[in-house]
Amino acid sequence: MNATLKRFAIHSLRASGTGVRASQVTNSFINRTTIRNFASLDASKLEIIKTTSPKTKLPNDQLVFGKTFTDHMLEIEWTAEAGWGTPKISPYHNLSLDPSTVVFHYAFELFEGMKAYKDKNGNIRTFRPDKNMTRMNKSAARIALPTFDGDELMKLINQFLLLDQSFVPEGTGYSLYLRPTLIGTTASLGVGTPDRALLYVIASPVGPYYSSGFKPVSLEATGHAVRAWPGGVGDKKLGANYAPCILPQLEAAKRGYAQNLWLFGEEGYVTEAGAMNAFFAFQNADGTKELTTAPLDGTILEGVTRDSILQLCKERLPKEWTVTERKFTIHEVEERAQKGQLIEAFCSGTAAVVSPIKAIGWKGKDIEVPIVAGSSGEVTKSVGEWIRAIQYGDEEYNGWSRVAK
Amino acid sequence: MNATLKRFAIHSLRASGTGVRASQVTNSFINRTTIRNFASLDASKLEIIKTTSPKTKLPNDQLVFGKTFTDHMLEIEWTAEAGWGTPKISPYHNLSLDPSTVVFHYAFELFEGMKAYKDKNGNIRTFRPDKNMTRMNKSAARIALPTFDGDELMKLINQFLLLDQSFVPEGTGYSLYLRPTLIGTTASLGVGTPDRALLYVIASPVGPYYSSGFKPVSLEATGHAVRAWPGGVGDKKLGANYAPCILPQLEAAKRGYAQNLWLFGEEGYVTEAGAMNAFFAFQNADGTKELTTAPLDGTILEGVTRDSILQLCKERLPKEWTVTERKFTIHEVEERAQKGQLIEAFCSGTAAVVSPIKAIGWKGKDIEVPIVAGSSGEVTKSVGEWIRAIQYGDEEYNGWSRVAK
Repeated sequence: MNATLKRFAIHSLRASGTGVRASQVTNSFINRTTIRNFASLDASKLEIIKTTSPKTKLPNDQLVFGKTFTDHMLEIEWTAEAGWGTPKISPYHNLSLDPSTVVFHYAFELFEGMKAYKDKNGNIRTFRPDKNMTRMNKSAARIALPTFDGDELMKLINQFLLLDQSFVPEGTGYSLYLRPTLIGTTASLGVGTPDRALLYVIASPVGPYYSSGFKPVSLEATGHAVRAWPGGVGDKKLGANYAPCILPQLEAAKRGYAQNLWLFGEEGYVTEAGAMNAFFAFQNADGTKELTTAPLDGTILEGVTRDSILQLCKERLPKEWTVTERKFTIHEVEERAQKGQLIEAFCSGTAAVVSPIKAIGWKGKDIEVPIVAGSSGEVTKSVGEWIRAIQYGDEEYNGWSRVAK
Repeated sequence: MNATLKRFAIHSLRASGTGVRASQVTNSFINRTTIRNFASLDASKLEIIKTTSPKTKLPNDQLVFGKTFTDHMLEIEWTAEAGWGTPKISPYHNLSLDPSTVVFHYAFELFEGMKAYKDKNGNIRTFRPDKNMTRMNKSAARIALPTFDGDELMKLINQFLLLDQSFVPEGTGYSLYLRPTLIGTTASLGVGTPDRALLYVIASPVGPYYSSGFKPVSLEATGHAVRAWPGGVGDKKLGANYAPCILPQLEAAKRGYAQNLWLFGEEGYVTEAGAMNAFFAFQNADGTKELTTAPLDGTILEGVTRDSILQLCKERLPKEWTVTERKFTIHEVEERAQKGQLIEAFCSGTAAVVSPIKAIGWKGKDIEVPIVAGSSGEVTKSVGEWIRAIQYGDEEYNGWSRVAK
């Protein structure tokens, strides 16, 4: 057995009793939908060290996304030998890492984006956190970082939220953005399975994406740069998917577009927009209407907001509507816009919930998208209201909103 | 102008006077071959703080790749406001970073791999370092990190080498592995152009890849997972290209293969192997021979060793040989092996120089590769010897080997 093989064998062996179980996670990893947990992440072991120098809180109108953080952070270390260690909440602090640590060299890193909301009774709520935990485990398994029990992590996040609840800003559109992050921390330049990792969660108070109403955005349809590919990792929330998208976004911005609308293949399939999913509403000749988004074929991020929109629209849109996940091209969008059949379009994601699209730049021209309801289309407006009502606990729906206890 | 656009505009403006100049770096970024430097990295400003607690050096037989490092490290900070700061060599130390730093979340990270060799006169030499500097700048530009003057960085690396030259191990096959690294250090969860970065270089004494002679490896041809694609970033040395390759490698290892041989497309084009380029030697029916490797079409890492092999083989192989860069498929490899026309195959990279291939797993069977010269083919053996002679200064060739002064 050569050195390389031996190293893999040792890591596979170690991993099977603790975090990653290679035989589970590697079978059909591209379209895997279930995760079995072999981790021993245990929320009951939580240790808390409270800050002795609480931060001054910013007024709501000075909040900038992801720039300021709460008093504390949650951390759990993992090693291949010992599995998940003692969860710790302690004062927010820098990470101190050897410069050879694999997270700096080989992008062993993944994250989640989720929010906590203060409801009218002062409770702190999260929105479908189980979806984030499942997705985070899928991301971890895909880059050979340890998986974990998502219920246990959510118990820990809830404790963190209760401790720092005074940082959750009040008011519609205000929330505490949560950033669960998992990084490989092995200090070695060898390219292999990390034998050390750190899972941490930080939290940033944030304001509404749009300070008053919607601000519809223009997107540039981009085919020369490609965000994701079949057999790649575009459906996982890995750091690796983000840095390469900045340069195409800068190019689009120079031409006045806020984000890219990522196309795929010679056919020009519409995939997603910037770091958000994309929905298009069409009217058919017979009067029926369709709300559609690209299917989860391995190149599309499995957005929690995307999933929520699909489910709510199937239930709540009037009967002339069908809600589909299907492949469609920029040519169809252009053609149907020309025929007056493009009714509206929007992006979806945790940050903005929904973000109306007003135009799509394509081959030097703009495809105009109707904005019939003032600053968005009607579906966009309804969907945004439906989801916000659930997120802030004004409406109970299928247990999607969970009070932190 | 909305907030997103404004942010881009500000960053573009800042960047144009200091590091990244967006209008330069973004034009045809996918196949860009020249970099103009607008940075003010200045080696003459170097400050050195020497260690007061020198490390104990390991004997040659205990060196493990990338596990132990020299006494010092080189660092240069960059900010959008001030450009490149004062270069510093100081004792090797941990990096202390805010947990929201973009390198942990969005893979703003890239690196180079190069080596320093001790020649028979005790001089410290690097091999074609200008190639690494050019490639590092291309990688930086592709993910909106600042570019820099490569000559200045090499002057700094040479100072670093002279300071830590006692760590360069002696003996053929022994060297000091250098890891120039560039990371985005903006502490913010906003996805955008980093306005802070850190360029650092660490150095690890390493032994020969194979302790005695070659150890030919078996590769598994992999089509279900895809390393790189047109419009992606597979030709850049970004962290983002590495973590996603570990799981497919673990799968291959379970079946007894050391690395993946990455295929692309329905045609099954051979691209590269693990983190190395791949060369195949074929014999034609008319007695002529061909050494070939995949072309630099945007999906192939522009290996310095690859380039050196092409140049040396064009000059030095007997006249029946042609040396080509062309697309070829796993089907051609299989067919020509069956006909007895596959003469040899090897991988190339900084770590091993050349690494002979003995078999390629494909659809459950092995394509056997001849190993006529004991533990490799004849070209593999010659190429390894040619390059090592230049690297260790035993032979002068085109200024490829540079003495650190």
